[in-house]
Amino acid sequence: MNKIVNIAIIGLGQIGIYLYNELNIKKKDIEIKTGKKIKIVAISAKNRNKKRRFPISKKIFYRNPLQIFSKEKIDILFECIGLPDGISKKVVETALKNKIHVITPNKALLAKHGDVLASLAEKNKVNLEFEASVAGGIPILKTIKEGLATNKINKVYGILNGTTNYILSEMENSNENFDKVLQKAQKLGYAEPGNPKLDLNGFDAFAKIRILSALSFNTKISKNKCIMEGIENIKLTDIKIASQLGLRVKLLGISEVINGQLFETVHPCLVSKKTYIGNVNGVMNAVITEGKPVGQSVLQGEGAGPGPTSSSLLSDLLSILRGNIKYPFGISNSKRKFIKPFNNNNYTNSLYLRFDVRDKQGVLSLITNRLAKYKISVKRIIQTPDKKNKKATIVIITHKTTEINARNCLTLFKKNRNILKFPTLIRLYN
Amino acid sequence: MNKIVNIAIIGLGQIGIYLYNELNIKKKDIEIKTGKKIKIVAISAKNRNKKRRFPISKKIFYRNPLQIFSKEKIDILFECIGLPDGISKKVVETALKNKIHVITPNKALLAKHGDVLASLAEKNKVNLEFEASVAGGIPILKTIKEGLATNKINKVYGILNGTTNYILSEMENSNENFDKVLQKAQKLGYAEPGNPKLDLNGFDAFAKIRILSALSFNTKISKNKCIMEGIENIKLTDIKIASQLGLRVKLLGISEVINGQLFETVHPCLVSKKTYIGNVNGVMNAVITEGKPVGQSVLQGEGAGPGPTSSSLLSDLLSILRGNIKYPFGISNSKRKFIKPFNNNNYTNSLYLRFDVRDKQGVLSLITNRLAKYKISVKRIIQTPDKKNKKATIVIITHKTTEINARNCLTLFKKNRNILKFPTLIRLYN
Repeated sequence: MNKIVNIAIIGLGQIGIYLYNELNIKKKDIEIKTGKKIKIVAISAKNRNKKRRFPISKKIFYRNPLQIFSKEKIDILFECIGLPDGISKKVVETALKNKIHVITPNKALLAKHGDVLASLAEKNKVNLEFEASVAGGIPILKTIKEGLATNKINKVYGILNGTTNYILSEMENSNENFDKVLQKAQKLGYAEPGNPKLDLNGFDAFAKIRILSALSFNTKISKNKCIMEGIENIKLTDIKIASQLGLRVKLLGISEVINGQLFETVHPCLVSKKTYIGNVNGVMNAVITEGKPVGQSVLQGEGAGPGPTSSSLLSDLLSILRGNIKYPFGISNSKRKFIKPFNNNNYTNSLYLRFDVRDKQGVLSLITNRLAKYKISVKRIIQTPDKKNKKATIVIITHKTTEINARNCLTLFKKNRNILKFPTLIRLYN
Repeated sequence: MNKIVNIAIIGLGQIGIYLYNELNIKKKDIEIKTGKKIKIVAISAKNRNKKRRFPISKKIFYRNPLQIFSKEKIDILFECIGLPDGISKKVVETALKNKIHVITPNKALLAKHGDVLASLAEKNKVNLEFEASVAGGIPILKTIKEGLATNKINKVYGILNGTTNYILSEMENSNENFDKVLQKAQKLGYAEPGNPKLDLNGFDAFAKIRILSALSFNTKISKNKCIMEGIENIKLTDIKIASQLGLRVKLLGISEVINGQLFETVHPCLVSKKTYIGNVNGVMNAVITEGKPVGQSVLQGEGAGPGPTSSSLLSDLLSILRGNIKYPFGISNSKRKFIKPFNNNNYTNSLYLRFDVRDKQGVLSLITNRLAKYKISVKRIIQTPDKKNKKATIVIITHKTTEINARNCLTLFKKNRNILKFPTLIRLYN
């Protein structure tokens, strides 16, 4: 690489504009650390004149990012648009084919097309770096690829979405319901104002889990059908009952190799307040890896926002400027295998079940009988009557049971005039 | 570097022999990840015939490690002897001068001679890697050098010694005194059987703090005079009283740039049980960095033992095999500056003071008067009488005060027939 390194930034949203400013501020520092002078020679976004947090140089502005490749000599390109396909994919592909290193925080793109793009990068001997795609400022990908490189990792899990973690924490703290807290999160900039769906339904965390699995187990990115549930159905009632039981609701992403089979999932979990993960609150992210010989490692930090994301984007930049050419997923693409999926039906957990019922004799025994039919045994029952409305809430904590038994059993409760709603299920985490 | 890489391991103690075995087991995996074939061509220790955890090849054994340099062509050398000077220093120096990459877990050597050795490595264009020297299996040095490379870090602190953390946790859990728990730690292999002094008196954690400071702030390793206290004087009584107050004793290492001045310290702290650091128990280590723009990052993992240490040694090996030639401290030695030391007298904390006194009227007012003389104001007093022996324990939590005031004030208590022992002081963290 030459002493002067030309840089393009594609996408000037929250992340892109912050990065643009950081690169300008830190030029000197980067030169001290790497011996290279960076120069931003092209930026691109939809709208040239939009009001942005930091002023941009209009001389280097392109409305169409694809024009940049013919007009400028680029060494390193930052893709900050964030789409899973379309122009994001096109820009990254074109860059790699032109032997331009790519750095991106785009988890949706990586989770969907990571294998193809990694192979393209490898073929063209350039880097494709995506530290910022998982857990914001936490350097978890580098830690897996380098810091823990020779460990045999068999499990990686954690809190991978700051928005949902903020909402769950804030519901507990403020005693306000989901909708109200979601509005607060949007006001604070934690949740997308328009469409927070991808955070709330678990999709965002799931893309990160796919990337983490591939890195941790040296496998191709899986396309397996998995259990993916978000936090949209978590009620304040559940958070309060859980709290009385010493538990807390967390949206966990979990990836594990079980008997040589890959199990990936994202769903709300009840965890003990006494555990580490039970105390990662607010917008914090945390990733836990279990490997041999290193044992358990924990990384925690701010999971979102332009500051932490930019920290990871710049660490990727330094890595490239220092001349570290690396396989995007730690090993050559040809060495990465698919592994068989674990049968989700055999996923086993204790369950928290909440039933809204008519306060009538026989309802509890009806419930327990049906559970017994699927060999789901009860560990604890908490019945709270609501005399005035002749209703009651029955919460049952079960012993461990399989996913298939739980699902089949719950369908029995669909139609019953004494059970007022389809029961709420939250899995307990270990 | 050639396709075949020759390796020497100097020192076959707990760490060295584990590493020897790991390298043999993981040859194939290392080749897949780096394209290089490693070959152990020389090992060295005092005693060829000692019974070891894994069998060694005697054909490649050297009693005198310095002979290896003339007899074998070595590419990478692991120094696992662990002395701060002497043969450890000699071996590392000779290797670097012969353009051999060096990997070592030796924090004492690094804290004492790190600057000279780093400059030697830089001059000879080889790597000097020491990830394993701080916090065992936690890749904290790589995280600072690479993952957080462009952040401005202003503080790094944490629990850096697993032995002392185990002892403090176990005293609280088992209600046993220091000596008994130390014996237990020695039996379990957490504390050195012969001389656990360097763990207990804070020296080990301090060497790690010196290394962390240099990396975090891009400075030379400081030689400043600092407050260094170990846990030898922590009594079960203090742990129990702290627990009643919702606090826990932790040996913290702290390094911070305050108004452009470097402050480094290691001492027992009282931390809230509700905080993250208050819940890092047993042999666990945790390192917290505060930087901009990334915010707070936390890394936690097993801090000691051959497994975690070996994980870090191998991550350094992979980094070298992948061809990442890097400055040992992240930037060129010539760019690393000394910064002025912070005046320890101005270090400010709330204090926990425990007095063993005669149960006589006027003693409490004597104490509070003396505190007042140094403008140390009292936040909380807990007096527990021991009627039978006509004694009492007085615990005082003060508002914040400076180190100089605390020290001067405490000297007033040295000679007094009503105060039976020199008071115990533990600083509160934040």
